[in-house]
Amino acid sequence: MSNKKYVYLFEEGRADMKNLLGGKGANLAEMTNIGLPVPPGMIITTEACKEFYLGGRQFPPGMEEQVREKMRVLEEKTGRRFGDPANPLLVSVRSGAPVSMPGMMDTVLNLGLNDQTVEGLGRAAGRRFAFDCYRRFLNMFGDVVLGIEHARFERILEKCKERRGVNLDQELPVEDLEQVAAEYKALIERETGRPFPQDPVEQLFMAIYAVFNSWNNDRAIVYRRINKIPDDLGTAVNIQVMVFGNLGDDCGTGVAFTRDPATGARQLYGEYLINAQGEDVVAGIRTPRPISDLEVEMPAVYQQFVSICEQLEKHYRNMQDIEFTIERGKLYILQTRTGKRTAQAAVKIAVDMVHEGLISKEEAIMRVEPAQLDQLLHRRIDPRSSVEVIARGLPASPGAASGKVVFDADEAEILGNQGEKVILVRTETTPDDIHGIVASQGVLTSRGGMTSHAAVVARGMGKPCVCGCEAIRIDYEAGEFRVNDLVIKKGDVISIDGSTGQVILGEVPLIDPELSPEFLELLQWADEIRTLGVRANADTPEDAARARAFGAEGIGLTRTEHMFMAPDRLPIVQEMILATSTRERQAALDKLLPMQQGDFYGILKAMEGLPVTIRLLDPPLHEFLPNAEELAVEITRLRLTGGNDEELQKKEELLKKVRVLAEFNPMLGHRGCRLGITFPEVYAMQARAIFQATAQLVKEGVRVFPEVEIPLVGDVKELALLRQLVNEVAEQVMKETGVNFEYSVGTMIEIPRAALLADEIAREADFFSFGTNDLTQTTFGFSRDDAEGKFLHEYVEKKILPENPFIVLDQTGVGKLMKICVDLGRQTKPDLVIGICGEHGGEPSSIEFCHRIGLNYVSCSPFRVPIARLAAAQARIKNG
Amino acid sequence: MSNKKYVYLFEEGRADMKNLLGGKGANLAEMTNIGLPVPPGMIITTEACKEFYLGGRQFPPGMEEQVREKMRVLEEKTGRRFGDPANPLLVSVRSGAPVSMPGMMDTVLNLGLNDQTVEGLGRAAGRRFAFDCYRRFLNMFGDVVLGIEHARFERILEKCKERRGVNLDQELPVEDLEQVAAEYKALIERETGRPFPQDPVEQLFMAIYAVFNSWNNDRAIVYRRINKIPDDLGTAVNIQVMVFGNLGDDCGTGVAFTRDPATGARQLYGEYLINAQGEDVVAGIRTPRPISDLEVEMPAVYQQFVSICEQLEKHYRNMQDIEFTIERGKLYILQTRTGKRTAQAAVKIAVDMVHEGLISKEEAIMRVEPAQLDQLLHRRIDPRSSVEVIARGLPASPGAASGKVVFDADEAEILGNQGEKVILVRTETTPDDIHGIVASQGVLTSRGGMTSHAAVVARGMGKPCVCGCEAIRIDYEAGEFRVNDLVIKKGDVISIDGSTGQVILGEVPLIDPELSPEFLELLQWADEIRTLGVRANADTPEDAARARAFGAEGIGLTRTEHMFMAPDRLPIVQEMILATSTRERQAALDKLLPMQQGDFYGILKAMEGLPVTIRLLDPPLHEFLPNAEELAVEITRLRLTGGNDEELQKKEELLKKVRVLAEFNPMLGHRGCRLGITFPEVYAMQARAIFQATAQLVKEGVRVFPEVEIPLVGDVKELALLRQLVNEVAEQVMKETGVNFEYSVGTMIEIPRAALLADEIAREADFFSFGTNDLTQTTFGFSRDDAEGKFLHEYVEKKILPENPFIVLDQTGVGKLMKICVDLGRQTKPDLVIGICGEHGGEPSSIEFCHRIGLNYVSCSPFRVPIARLAAAQARIKNG
Repeated sequence: MSNKKYVYLFEEGRADMKNLLGGKGANLAEMTNIGLPVPPGMIITTEACKEFYLGGRQFPPGMEEQVREKMRVLEEKTGRRFGDPANPLLVSVRSGAPVSMPGMMDTVLNLGLNDQTVEGLGRAAGRRFAFDCYRRFLNMFGDVVLGIEHARFERILEKCKERRGVNLDQELPVEDLEQVAAEYKALIERETGRPFPQDPVEQLFMAIYAVFNSWNNDRAIVYRRINKIPDDLGTAVNIQVMVFGNLGDDCGTGVAFTRDPATGARQLYGEYLINAQGEDVVAGIRTPRPISDLEVEMPAVYQQFVSICEQLEKHYRNMQDIEFTIERGKLYILQTRTGKRTAQAAVKIAVDMVHEGLISKEEAIMRVEPAQLDQLLHRRIDPRSSVEVIARGLPASPGAASGKVVFDADEAEILGNQGEKVILVRTETTPDDIHGIVASQGVLTSRGGMTSHAAVVARGMGKPCVCGCEAIRIDYEAGEFRVNDLVIKKGDVISIDGSTGQVILGEVPLIDPELSPEFLELLQWADEIRTLGVRANADTPEDAARARAFGAEGIGLTRTEHMFMAPDRLPIVQEMILATSTRERQAALDKLLPMQQGDFYGILKAMEGLPVTIRLLDPPLHEFLPNAEELAVEITRLRLTGGNDEELQKKEELLKKVRVLAEFNPMLGHRGCRLGITFPEVYAMQARAIFQATAQLVKEGVRVFPEVEIPLVGDVKELALLRQLVNEVAEQVMKETGVNFEYSVGTMIEIPRAALLADEIAREADFFSFGTNDLTQTTFGFSRDDAEGKFLHEYVEKKILPENPFIVLDQTGVGKLMKICVDLGRQTKPDLVIGICGEHGGEPSSIEFCHRIGLNYVSCSPFRVPIARLAAAQARIKNG
Repeated sequence: MSNKKYVYLFEEGRADMKNLLGGKGANLAEMTNIGLPVPPGMIITTEACKEFYLGGRQFPPGMEEQVREKMRVLEEKTGRRFGDPANPLLVSVRSGAPVSMPGMMDTVLNLGLNDQTVEGLGRAAGRRFAFDCYRRFLNMFGDVVLGIEHARFERILEKCKERRGVNLDQELPVEDLEQVAAEYKALIERETGRPFPQDPVEQLFMAIYAVFNSWNNDRAIVYRRINKIPDDLGTAVNIQVMVFGNLGDDCGTGVAFTRDPATGARQLYGEYLINAQGEDVVAGIRTPRPISDLEVEMPAVYQQFVSICEQLEKHYRNMQDIEFTIERGKLYILQTRTGKRTAQAAVKIAVDMVHEGLISKEEAIMRVEPAQLDQLLHRRIDPRSSVEVIARGLPASPGAASGKVVFDADEAEILGNQGEKVILVRTETTPDDIHGIVASQGVLTSRGGMTSHAAVVARGMGKPCVCGCEAIRIDYEAGEFRVNDLVIKKGDVISIDGSTGQVILGEVPLIDPELSPEFLELLQWADEIRTLGVRANADTPEDAARARAFGAEGIGLTRTEHMFMAPDRLPIVQEMILATSTRERQAALDKLLPMQQGDFYGILKAMEGLPVTIRLLDPPLHEFLPNAEELAVEITRLRLTGGNDEELQKKEELLKKVRVLAEFNPMLGHRGCRLGITFPEVYAMQARAIFQATAQLVKEGVRVFPEVEIPLVGDVKELALLRQLVNEVAEQVMKETGVNFEYSVGTMIEIPRAALLADEIAREADFFSFGTNDLTQTTFGFSRDDAEGKFLHEYVEKKILPENPFIVLDQTGVGKLMKICVDLGRQTKPDLVIGICGEHGGEPSSIEFCHRIGLNYVSCSPFRVPIARLAAAQARIKNG
């Protein structure tokens, strides 16, 4: 028999044993040891769970004996006995993974009840209570352990209430509950082919088995995928002596955060229900009362709770999410854990705690998940707009959103994936709805509080959520909800504001977020710590100004092709492309020159004193031309309907040219610097526009630092040739204007060959900027446009790739190439400035990688600049 | 004044000073030093030429003085004086680059003549002869040095002959030649604005200037590009005392090869003209007599020449191409160089010289240019076919070809580039016709011998050529040629056989070449030396058998998609692709299975005892479907013309599916192993077909080694997943058939990420095979289909890239990645078998690179297998 210790009493554990005991268990152990009123219990380790799976879903040898032994300790502590009809010990059996996965895995309460012990419990706590416990236990056990649908138990209960003509469970007399219990047992026997197991020890091991199994239920797997939790952690099992919040009006149960999880305000924030079990609060079936009411109802308990909260927050040096139960006036703490919070709260709590002397600035920075900041950077309803508020619920997750009403998670997923904006509207949500929440803009529920499933999940995802909006009445079958006389049908557009709880008819204008003083302070600290620069990608003066307001230290990428797409310019751009002589082309370019000069003037001016990287024309020219297939169809139509001859001829001419320019693989075709090589006059015009704008600004006394960027370079000779062209234009402009100005010329690194030959390319480059979108395409041989629609989803699903590499940088492959490039480039020029301007520049794990390989800056969309600043500081703290 | 030595007397040089003295000069020096009768002379170095260009086309300081000084030495040696009207010294001025560029640069003969010295020459050698020399000199000097079109001089001469009523130059009396010379001088004065320079020293420096300049004339630049000769070598200038082959019938001039340059036979091979200057032989204006006739005409001279030829061949240990002149019965050697030869001759000479004890086997191998072997591997006319031979010329360059008759080099280029097969037909060719020869299938001339321009150039390019076919009479203006009464018009198809000299009406059936015994022996030696294996790419049993006959040691790539394209299978393949359920798809796959099994059975059987790499389906599925644009046009047509409703609906359905499968960048899309991942049933069918064929063969007692190859892998997990699939199918087939068989599973390396992560991928791979076509596309970010049409030509032209990287492996970039891959792969598996199956596997410089980085084998098209065997041996000799 193995000597391995699989089972720990609470007093044998510590908070830092989370990996072994799970988060919940480690904290129960810690609280037990610091003397808090925790009902006694034991923890089966995650190690046991792992061995359970390794052994083909069998308990590891010795584990069962250790559980039995520890049960005897619990019996001693409580003076009750497991299965004793006279004075039965009841326990809860709960999962508890090293990382919190709320509601994802299974829990069984009141375990130990059977036809005998229910009577003993009845004698001690009242018969009605005992049978209420028993039927709840039968339901949970039947659902969680035996796999019988919860709804089938519900239906029995509902029928009983109908027969009795009552609405609430509490209104049922004991006889009815006995009847319900009997019917539940009959259902279980019918469904499983064997009677409900009366032996508490058998119940216990079946429940442990079910909890272990629940680690790999579908919900849990999806949750882990979304939250990037490794699959091999395993869950611990917590077995704890039951205490009851539902023995009468001197009982209750609640959940509280030591600070406001939505705003971060330093005040106790929570809810409780009198005469209820914990699940009643979390499930959102009854709407609970605010924690402050407890001060009036049970002042002593409230004071004790407040002081425990303070103690726990100090002990853990972090905001805590605490579950408690009051049994006949006695307070028990059932759980504490680091409280989930909105980004706003995370920022405020972290900054406040620094000011309170609880944590350091570095800790504060590490406390905020950069990706979560996105929430704060989302838009909100323009306060100047007049909106038609039709209802108000709880402000459960901040931010505002508009979308079509959808009542079903599956439908939300389908429409959401088609690019529709939808708001998921439910009476309440369950873990089965997660995929629908993911695909929605926001969630609206008619029941449940700030800690209900919908609220917790939406906050975690940074989606707006309004909860417990009891004014709305949902009719799933009719596909509508009503607010008084107003009928909102499926597909109608509504808006919700998760910061205020408002539900609004129709779409609303949204405005940019402002940064709170705490956020600004945190970012200030981040700036002091980080060594990685943060720039923004911006194509317009407006974007540039916004980026600067968010703290961008320059523009890392200005795409000039977007400027070419403007409706007033496209015809001139087409003229340029379709030109049959250099002279014709030059005429079109002459028209574009002042327009481009104006663009660059605006951006350079907005970024006064900071560098602005301007990329010369990159996409294949045929992107600016009409679609060949549409033209061919139109020509066929004109021919068959005897259309205008002149028009027909013109279109035929156009189609010919479009065909000449068409490409099999435009991504790898005639684009980037290849255009600059074959049509040097195009790049010359762009360089001239940049330098004329520069000269103009210098004359006006504005300090500007244009950085001319050559895209898609694969060989140093390309860069040398085009650099020379740019230099010549710069000299001409200096001569013509009599103004001297600074500028630099560098290149994108977005072709594997460029990365591999970076030592050569660095000879001609003042800077490198990784175009990781294209570099990912070429390194993987993935066309993003095709891969994301055709197979990438399956690749992530089947875990061939851990992530979509277009969102999270592939450090293994693309990153290896980047590392080679940085090393080679700096061999030639030790001070070479190297940045990144692909989408990855705003993604925290990618930013950390960029810090590690020694890049000088990341460049991302303006809205992600604060995220990048924080992520860069975290990267510095983690990696030095 | 600089002390640098720019000018060498012949006796100061050596054969190994080719880089400094040029090939011609170094050999003249060598011959002088071994005591051969070489007219005295000097060499201006290539160094002087380089400095000439560096200094802006100015002679380097000191060079002119050194030339004057050496001229004085020549005067002493000959007892004549430069510009002396009594006894004038005349010289030739010729270019001579380190690498032979026949006819590409300029030559001036008889320099030193003027109105005074011509009289002196007349007194010594006859007045008619002197004026003939003078008018030739004026013509050459006017053309080469002063840039006056040769034709204008020709016209003066022609008019003179018309006036006199004669056909041949020789028939003109001295008065006429005097008149012609006077008119030439007038022409020169009219064209240049100044009189013809009478000062021989001025003439000399003008000629040297012209020769230096000719290094960068258009012809020379094109020739260097085609022959991959560096642009910065520069040319030397040879100044040599004139000897005259045209002083009378005891004079002559000729060219001879020490062995037959077409067949390699060990016999003197050459031509001469009595009473002629060298240019008369080379230009092909008079048809010369075979060298053997000289034995009868001038037995002593012939014997001396034969013995000099033997001496030179032994001295240089290689076949020599020797120019000689007989002046009044005295033999002079004017030039010796390594003789150009056909591939057939190269092979025979190399092998013979080993047997003669002249060179080693290794030297023999190094003597044959592998790319040239292509000639021997081209097809010839099927001897069983009856052909209509309309004329016979000289068999100037072996191999047979058919094509449309074209009379103009420019037209040949245009049609050739459009993919038309053309035969260029000219009276004679000049260096200005090179681009036309490049674009033609072969060349036919009505004049000129085996050493004429057309013959030399065609042999160098490995193109069939028939020369001196005097039976044909070309009328350029009418666009036709006549053979007796037969008229062949421009555009009519003819065939030529450069091995026999036949000209044939119409197209002829061609058959595969057989390898000569010498070739087989040389390849045998190559096999003994090389360490790199050679396999072939073959998709059919026929190709496999041919490859084996050429010495392939296995099949390195069998593409299964070509099998899918067969007309009887395409409908089933389309069924498979358009299937809306797995069941439907399986039904189509079930139909394909026996067909594929048959394919693999044939190939595996043909390669009994050798490995056969079979790549599973690679291209994107939509390649097998109709074109979307055509469908859309057809649908529009059906709609507007009220076509068949059912047909319309069917086409609309099809278009929908085609659209779903369409991709933006198919090269980077849903193809290769990505298909295997998303449609495992397709790969499972292919694996089953391979293994069922294998089992069947094993049962029949045939030893087969199938290697299943997974294409487009970028991550080890892709390979792991598909390897498992293949293994499962193999196990099933073994179980079903009761046959155990060997097989392996490996992957293509054609994605940069795969190369970068080769250490991981090697864990799951039994072998790697570089797919350098795709690897070049992804490493460069070049779509071959687009790049070659749109910008690659310009890249090579502008020297951004040294070569088309799809033809010659880019060792710098793609090669670096391959090196990384080999090192990483062998870190994991030191014995990992690594090959290459891209087109580069048959290109000699790429093969050498593959040897250097330690690949196990190259795989190329069957016809290139012998080339690869030789190139692999050369790589071993060069690199060890």
